[in-house]
Amino acid sequence: MGTINWGILGAGKIAEKFVSDFAFVENGKVVAVASRDIQKSSGLAAKYRVQKSYGSYHEMLKDPTIDVVYIATPHNFHFEHTLMCFEYGKHVLCEKPITVNAQQLRILITKANEKNLFLMEALWTAFIPSIRQMMDWISENRIGKITLIQAEFGFIGNADPNGRLYNPGLAGGALLDIGIYPLTFAQMVAQSEIESFQVQAVKSATGIDVTNAIQIKYANGTIAQLASSVTTSLQNRGMVYGEHGRIEIPEFWKSKKVDVFTNGASEGFVDGTSSWGYCHEASHVNEMLLAKKHESHVMPLSRSLQMVELMDALRNEMGIIYPFE
Amino acid sequence: MGTINWGILGAGKIAEKFVSDFAFVENGKVVAVASRDIQKSSGLAAKYRVQKSYGSYHEMLKDPTIDVVYIATPHNFHFEHTLMCFEYGKHVLCEKPITVNAQQLRILITKANEKNLFLMEALWTAFIPSIRQMMDWISENRIGKITLIQAEFGFIGNADPNGRLYNPGLAGGALLDIGIYPLTFAQMVAQSEIESFQVQAVKSATGIDVTNAIQIKYANGTIAQLASSVTTSLQNRGMVYGEHGRIEIPEFWKSKKVDVFTNGASEGFVDGTSSWGYCHEASHVNEMLLAKKHESHVMPLSRSLQMVELMDALRNEMGIIYPFE
Repeated sequence: MGTINWGILGAGKIAEKFVSDFAFVENGKVVAVASRDIQKSSGLAAKYRVQKSYGSYHEMLKDPTIDVVYIATPHNFHFEHTLMCFEYGKHVLCEKPITVNAQQLRILITKANEKNLFLMEALWTAFIPSIRQMMDWISENRIGKITLIQAEFGFIGNADPNGRLYNPGLAGGALLDIGIYPLTFAQMVAQSEIESFQVQAVKSATGIDVTNAIQIKYANGTIAQLASSVTTSLQNRGMVYGEHGRIEIPEFWKSKKVDVFTNGASEGFVDGTSSWGYCHEASHVNEMLLAKKHESHVMPLSRSLQMVELMDALRNEMGIIYPFE
Repeated sequence: MGTINWGILGAGKIAEKFVSDFAFVENGKVVAVASRDIQKSSGLAAKYRVQKSYGSYHEMLKDPTIDVVYIATPHNFHFEHTLMCFEYGKHVLCEKPITVNAQQLRILITKANEKNLFLMEALWTAFIPSIRQMMDWISENRIGKITLIQAEFGFIGNADPNGRLYNPGLAGGALLDIGIYPLTFAQMVAQSEIESFQVQAVKSATGIDVTNAIQIKYANGTIAQLASSVTTSLQNRGMVYGEHGRIEIPEFWKSKKVDVFTNGASEGFVDGTSSWGYCHEASHVNEMLLAKKHESHVMPLSRSLQMVELMDALRNEMGIIYPFE
């Protein structure tokens, strides 16, 4: 088997976690890091013994040794940066949400197809062992027909009106920043088309959703109750209720632990590794690229598009339109 | 202080719990139990040393020693039985929901006023020590501004299409049977007018809601996510999230335990009594009657009417109309 060479676009917190997780990645290594701030990229490169660091994205993208780029910039830049990678013929794993609206994603999908390049949204949650264990229990019908899914993600974020979370010009709000996790969790568990959805939101003075509550009815009869907040620290647990039991998964988007409860008995799973959990999606991308695939079957673009379309529709209900739209 | 004499109308499970709780009640005693089945009323009376038992409601209501009647029959009978008590000049504490729709309750309120009789819905949850402790913590601003309330109540009920839970003719469905608890919990905690609400439901073949999910936005910006089910055993916990912490209350409608978490610290309250928790509302009714009051300030009829109107509106959204309506 060959080795896939990665370039990292962006050198913030998420980039560092991703790079550090390469200690657990198969068939791939990080060969370069780029930031508009050379101090940041060279610091990150030195810390994780990455060969090259660049003070410009373009400079890194010219590097012919790089196969695939992980885009770790804020989500308002994902569209522009993915297009930039495609121009240089690089495959892309792009942080979530892959774009801030469906219009952007449709353009990216067309471009990826035109250029025969791999594109995947970095929804790492779908690849982590705890979630895979949960999905196995669901497939094995451990808890029977699923009736209710609950998940929430909330933290006390920086309320700076010009900052990433609160600024509509940067596609701020709880939904796009973290609401995508409960939505993705529900989508994975329900395994059905959305029949209808409803949303309630509290908005900031800047016009973004600081807290939202979403309920979804799926075609198979499952109901999901989801919430996200950038103003309140929530318990951040995923709960899946079935007619014969329940599955409980703390911090479901990055969980190392999942339990199933049925008729008084319980069974647990613990992921004992010290990775952040990004290694699993990175290994999957390596596997896809080595097999010359241009799309993941686990996280296909159609699924990302459905999610971005849903978030567009939810924002429409909440009356949130970004100034650049 | 005098003593209030109680008659119990109905001799089922809830009646027995209520009677047994008189070991903890101040200023009142149960003097009679009535059931259409004399075996049931005499059995219950013997077990709890209640003086008199009747095989007919009318017979008990003629008893001049009885001051107030606790109506413990299924909710589809509450309207009829409350009117019956009023005819005999008896005050009434009526199990929840006080009526199956607002039209019925408006008639009862008019009658109670005409006859100067006390009427209260037996929403015992509002009177229990754990809930009062929670309300104190909220008043003390322990968790700051409340942003999100979550509560659910679900159990695996008897799916008999003719039974109490599944039969629309008996005003069946999760909402009226147990959904009233999460709704009341949210109303107590939010302390604000409802701005808007949304509901999703899964219905049985008989046309009642086996599972429902409700979200409410209050005028003060608080959001509630509530659920009830008669087909799934839910975790049945109340959670109140504020900007500085959270309150967690297991089995919130009858809880003996409540915890507040703020900035890594926590404080707990445990109600060490062995009562079911019905004693608190009964003592409150005694206090009201001894003070010659015809309405409770803790559970006023306006509040019950708001709740029944809300449940009417929720049923309307779910498309559930009972055949007798």
